[in-house]
Amino acid sequence: MPEFDLIARIAQRVGSRGDVVLGIGDDAAILQPPAGQHLVVAMDTLNAGVHFPSETAPGDIGWKALAVNLSDLAAMGATPAWCTLSLSLPGSDTAWVDGFLDGFLELARTHGVVLVGGDTTRGPLSVCVTVHGFVAPGQALRRDGARVGDDVWLSGTVGDAAGALTQWNAGQPMTAALRDRLDRPTPRVALGCALVGLADACIDVSDGLAADLAHVAVASNVGIDLHCPDLPASEALAMAFAAQEQLRLQATGGDDYELCFTAPTASRAAVARIASELQLPLTRIGTVTSAAGQVRLLAADGTEWLPPRAGYEHFAG
Amino acid sequence: MPEFDLIARIAQRVGSRGDVVLGIGDDAAILQPPAGQHLVVAMDTLNAGVHFPSETAPGDIGWKALAVNLSDLAAMGATPAWCTLSLSLPGSDTAWVDGFLDGFLELARTHGVVLVGGDTTRGPLSVCVTVHGFVAPGQALRRDGARVGDDVWLSGTVGDAAGALTQWNAGQPMTAALRDRLDRPTPRVALGCALVGLADACIDVSDGLAADLAHVAVASNVGIDLHCPDLPASEALAMAFAAQEQLRLQATGGDDYELCFTAPTASRAAVARIASELQLPLTRIGTVTSAAGQVRLLAADGTEWLPPRAGYEHFAG
Repeated sequence: MPEFDLIARIAQRVGSRGDVVLGIGDDAAILQPPAGQHLVVAMDTLNAGVHFPSETAPGDIGWKALAVNLSDLAAMGATPAWCTLSLSLPGSDTAWVDGFLDGFLELARTHGVVLVGGDTTRGPLSVCVTVHGFVAPGQALRRDGARVGDDVWLSGTVGDAAGALTQWNAGQPMTAALRDRLDRPTPRVALGCALVGLADACIDVSDGLAADLAHVAVASNVGIDLHCPDLPASEALAMAFAAQEQLRLQATGGDDYELCFTAPTASRAAVARIASELQLPLTRIGTVTSAAGQVRLLAADGTEWLPPRAGYEHFAG
Repeated sequence: MPEFDLIARIAQRVGSRGDVVLGIGDDAAILQPPAGQHLVVAMDTLNAGVHFPSETAPGDIGWKALAVNLSDLAAMGATPAWCTLSLSLPGSDTAWVDGFLDGFLELARTHGVVLVGGDTTRGPLSVCVTVHGFVAPGQALRRDGARVGDDVWLSGTVGDAAGALTQWNAGQPMTAALRDRLDRPTPRVALGCALVGLADACIDVSDGLAADLAHVAVASNVGIDLHCPDLPASEALAMAFAAQEQLRLQATGGDDYELCFTAPTASRAAVARIASELQLPLTRIGTVTSAAGQVRLLAADGTEWLPPRAGYEHFAG
């Protein structure tokens, strides 16, 4: 299928927004940013064999490629609007492209995001997405705003995606609930928007909780103590792994795309209200300290717990 | 080199602009679009072995990855401002990355463009860039504005990049001047901006003159007659190829990134003034006709010339 047919195939399936002056089909898209807002831009690529196994269902690849980008906007408290897509494909497989678009556009519709441009090229399977959103000036959630004494909060549960990956790497069947977290992560867009004006700092958990919080600690020049017994785990994760392995997955596993944020202790009731409104568990997992740049994982007895492996390993060893 | 070190290495070399509220280093960039302007967004990927030979100098890859994107903005008449970069690398080679940045940032500085974000991943060598620019509402140059009776104009010369590619594919040494056009194309940014309010339609020559003008013809529901003897050729191209092969390269060769635009005949003096001001040859190469969707290449005697091969073939057979 020539590139131009492929682009037409994509163009006929995307939605519309009033602020898209010109979408797919010219040398570039023309967009009308809302007056008085800042533009928030994130870009993330997923490569076959690195970020997902090549045999992953195309719909899941499409979903995840957009989800990881929307998660970055969520971590800034931005409302998503537009995206562009660069799709590198080794061959011409219309069924694959249609399946990819099923997942990609399903998530786009959910968040009112319109695909406005990009390109398609020949090459090893790779998906690059750029997303655009808006936030009021000075209101974006950043990594550098954490303050000593803040609570540290986490949405949902962590470790699930890494649990599925661990099973996959061991050649075991993946637990369905864990695999679903790995293949179709939920970007916490509504939560990010709700945290504007409330959270002091925010990040999404993509590389692993400890590694991601280290970025917050460095950027904010603070320390972070996490209370390991408080880390929320899904039932599926608790069923599938022994306690120490579960804790390792929670503390260091990536790809969950939950939001981790800090907020003043005076905001606990407000955070609880947001959790209730969004029907999304928000768990207090730690405290911001003055130990600049230092993230500690504390066991129930207050001693420091060192995970057996730092950071998150992707597919392909 | 871990990803975070690589990002820091990139971050310390990028420039700044007053409208970049937050650049590299958080989950997303925060940008301040100018009031009352439309945002123009383009995204293009270059894959090793497809868009350039793997052994291409890293500085040339960096230059070209940004150039092809700026060319898309130029074709819209937009003033470039920001870009994001997703770099997939098979290994950790700081010298390669430094060389890549040399070329990428040299071109960025030339146009006052600041790199504000993106990501780095492991994978087959691939460079995806998204560029952002501005244009006054309703003023963008589009493919769908050509009018019957318009002149068709072309900047610079065409066929040079394809000439170098033809030499490379034949295992011959590349003529230096042709190779330079292939490796370091010049995006016609100033020309695009100067054409706002003057050109009826515009496109950049990336896939080949005939193929690109076919997009204009279809989008504008017009025909285009090109006068082959008027197509401008560089001295290097004329020296390196026989007449028929030269014409084939000019009419169907891609990757030159010149602008091709249509304008009313009453604007000929204005076009000449722009050519003089920019010191960039602008050549009248044809006419817009009423033969909807049809691009014809006419020989000196008025008969139609059919190129031996339509469209542009990239690297890798």
